[in-house]
Order: sequence, then structure tokens, then C-alpha cells
Amino acid sequence: MTIKQESVSLEDAQRVIAAGQAKAAEIGSPSNVAVVDAGGNLVSHIRMDHAWVGSIDISINKAFTARAFDIATKDLAENAQPGAQFYGIQNSNHGRVMIFAGGIPLRQDGQVVGAVGVSGGTGEQDQTVAEAAAAAF
Amino acid sequence: MTIKQESVSLEDAQRVIAAGQAKAAEIGSPSNVAVVDAGGNLVSHIRMDHAWVGSIDISINKAFTARAFDIATKDLAENAQPGAQFYGIQNSNHGRVMIFAGGIPLRQDGQVVGAVGVSGGTGEQDQTVAEAAAAAF
Amino acid sequence: MTIKQESVSLEDAQRVIAAGQAKAAEIGSPSNVAVVDAGGNLVSHIRMDHAWVGSIDISINKAFTARAFDIATKDLAENAQPGAQFYGIQNSNHGRVMIFAGGIPLRQDGQVVGAVGVSGGTGEQDQTVAEAAAAAF
Amino acid sequence: MTIKQESVSLEDAQRVIAAGQAKAAEIGSPSNVAVVDAGGNLVSHIRMDHAWVGSIDISINKAFTARAFDIATKDLAENAQPGAQFYGIQNSNHGRVMIFAGGIPLRQDGQVVGAVGVSGGTGEQDQTVAEAAAAAF
Repeated sequence: MTIKQESVSLEDAQRVIAAGQAKAAEIGSPSNVAVVDAGGNLVSHIRMDHAWVGSIDISINKAFTARAFDIATKDLAENAQPGAQFYGIQNSNHGRVMIFAGGIPLRQDGQVVGAVGVSGGTGEQDQTVAEAAAAAF
Repeated sequence: MTIKQESVSLEDAQRVIAAGQAKAAEIGSPSNVAVVDAGGNLVSHIRMDHAWVGSIDISINKAFTARAFDIATKDLAENAQPGAQFYGIQNSNHGRVMIFAGGIPLRQDGQVVGAVGVSGGTGEQDQTVAEAAAAAF
Repeated sequence: MTIKQESVSLEDAQRVIAAGQAKAAEIGSPSNVAVVDAGGNLVSHIRMDHAWVGSIDISINKAFTARAFDIATKDLAENAQPGAQFYGIQNSNHGRVMIFAGGIPLRQDGQVVGAVGVSGGTGEQDQTVAEAAAAAF
Repeated sequence: MTIKQESVSLEDAQRVIAAGQAKAAEIGSPSNVAVVDAGGNLVSHIRMDHAWVGSIDISINKAFTARAFDIATKDLAENAQPGAQFYGIQNSNHGRVMIFAGGIPLRQDGQVVGAVGVSGGTGEQDQTVAEAAAAAF
């Protein structure tokens, strides 16, 4: 018997990204914003004008990480420090695991159906943008 | 509005793999058999005793390919030959695209919900095992 | 003396992508559409509902290829066949060179300022969508 | 004179995995469970329904690590902390070395003949599941 899985649509992803973009503009932090689906695969991405090129990959992989482990990357970060229970997790999954703030799972009725990832500013800025983006879902 | 996606369960995957294993034993072709879900992510894998070590990766990636493009790898192969419309597709997706027989999508009510990949024998043997596996779904 | 380089903005990229999406919907070919800037780096990407997961990477890399060599991937394809002058080019750039239809440079005053890449259908469908997308620039 | 090497069979691997699955179900920690042979190569893997997608790779590589260095990953972890004798070992072997709990060598007559790796819960949960799995060997 198959598993039923809801997953974000492109329309969902674009609404989430637009909300992130608006917040990023508001706080003056040009950002990359990405959304992945329930399978961890990219649905949509934007890089705002003048946002870092190196953050393309990071935004996509923050979203991947948040879905891969159903956890905000900010929270995973605490468990990935030296001496903590998941120290070294950042070396798994071919370098796709991001362990700093900016990735947040998207939930519907308690189930994770995708995730958003933001990169372009400080950890605090990325987190602020990601929270605004996730709130639009 | 989210997308509803059915996906193979572990129980489905194990039934499919067991059928593949039985057929592989019957025709004397020690095989790797893998099943991925609707997101293209591994659900289960077996390597039969004495099956090729190099085929672990191939079986998993045949299953990935069959889901990534919703097509049997045998059929994709025809389109990936020199001069054909998808020649070069095998260089995409970080080397995960397999363009020879042995990968088959798993469908339910017309929708692809996962895929099976087989590697260990000739193209004909892999295809025979994959068809027996898929038929158990 | 520095080089002046014009490059697509996010607004440009989104207009191009929207035009591609509209054409893809019209011809019934759920697609991935990506735009890169003058540096070959991703500006924006969408995956339409039910478009192939394996085409995420391909759309982005078709766009990369079209800018990397300032040529439509359809034209590069002819030169990358066995026996042709660029046979083997697909092994360069860490697997990012796509040699089939669907990638088109975006030009302004004769200068390439970015590129669009489309993947999700046949070569002919991808090319049709990419042309509609590029025309919106 | 050749070296004699005993190695886990598929049947062994499936028995070990089934025991891990049962323990994971008992403690409510949906897990990925993987077994590698004496060569460090995958023999079998399962991902239980709703277990983390990011843990596929981790379970396989915990098993690899436990065989690659003939040590439980929990014990390797202590030696891989900043300042310890193997700090940095996690950068070797192309990102396959996992330095947190959940990987255990499988021994027969004192010789390591394979290993099991578990990922999906806390470090403590993964270790509990791995120990139950290893005990079935």
C-alpha cells in the first residue's frame, strides 16, 4: 500500500519566494531564496539583483537540508557542533547539508511538504527572510 | 494548493525486490535490485551474493533515472544515442543518468509512484529481472 | 580599463521564465525553465507541476551551456557528435555541458547577457518553449 | 598465498536489518538501516516509511565507516573531535566517514566481516537500533 504524500506546488513555492523577496528588500539583504518539494527536489529559486553568487548553492541546499532532516537548519546547527550528537553530519550527502540558519521546513497539517532556504546575508538576516517566506505558506 | 503524490512504501519496495530476486535466481543472474520513491530517493536495495560491486551504484541510479524522467531506461537509451534528441543526457545529474536496460517506473492509476532498477547481468537479463520485479507492484 | 558587461536582472529572468511557462502550458509540456546571467550563474528557476525531476539539473545546465559558449545548445549538439570538431566537450565543465536542444543565449545589442534553458519534453518541445521564453527578452 | 576473508551474505544482512527495523519500530524512531560487507560495499538497505531522506546516505556511510576502520562510529567520534588524534578524518574518503553514533562492525570469530549503519533518530536512538541489529548477527 503506497504512502500518501502532499507536496508543495509551483504556485506555493512562488508565493513563499515572493514573501521572502519582499522581506529581504525591506531589510536590505539581497538574497537567494529556494523552495524544494517533499522529495527534497528544487521547485523554484530566485537570486535577487546583487545577491552573492556563492549563495545560489547554499540557498538550495539549506532548503534540501531542512527537508532531508525535517528540521530548521538553525536547530540542526546546534547538534552539529564539535562534541554534539551530529557533529560531522555536514560531511554527508555529498556536501549538501547546511548547518547554519536560513532553512525552514514547510508544514501542512503537521506533515513536512517541502522547505525554503535563504542565503545572502548574515545568519540573522537569512533567518528573518526565511521565516517571512515560510509564513506565507 | 499542494500536490497530492502517492509514493511506494517500504513494504511495496520489498515485495518488488523479492520478485526481482526470485527471477534473478531463476535465470542465474546474481543482481543488485533497488527501489526509489516518487521523489527519486532510495527506499530499499539488495545485492545478491556474488553480484557485482560496481552494480550497486548502477541499480540505484537506473531506478533514479526511471523516475527522474518517468521512462524505462531501455527506452531512454534509444534517445540518448549519438545523433538522437537526448544525446548527452547521460552527462547530466552528476552522472546519475543510466541509459541502458534495467530501470522501470512503477505506476499506480497511471501516475509514477517510484521505480525499480536492476544491475548485475547482461542488458537482457537485467531487463527480465526488472520486469518481473515491476510486475509484483 | 575595465570591461562593461550588461547582464539580465531578476526582473528580466522572471519575465523570460513566465513566457516559457505560458508556452509550455499551451503545448502541454510541463517544463523546468531556468535563466542564468552573463556570468553563467543561476538567476531564477521554476519546475512546473509534474515536470521531470531529472530536468531540474538539465534546464539549469542548458542555460549555463548556452552562455558558456554563446551558442544555442541545439547548434552545439551538431558539433559534439562523434567525429565532429567538439566531440567530447560534454565531458568538460564537470558535466555541466548539455548538447541537446533547449538552451538559448539572451542577447542585447548583439552582446550575450544571459541565457535560458528548458527541459521537460522532447527536444522539439523544449526548443519551442525556449524560443518563446527568449523572445520575451 | 591468498587471504581468506569471511563476509556477510545477503541473508545475514537481511536478518540484521530486520532486527534493526523491529527495534526502530519499538522505540518509535523511523530509520534507515544499511549493511555493508567485508569490502565496505553495500549489501542491503531499507528506509522505513517517513524516515529522513537525508539519512539514506548517512546510514550507508556509517556502515562503511565502521568497516573501513573496524570501529564503532560512536568510538571514532571521540577521536575525531577538534584537538583529538583523528581530527579531520571526516574529510577523507570523499565525505564517506561518519563520526557520530549508529555504525557498528559485525564480527565473527574476532574478525570483522561487515558492518551495520543506522540513521533516522537521535544519536542515542540510532545507537540503540544499531546494537539490536548487530546482535542479530
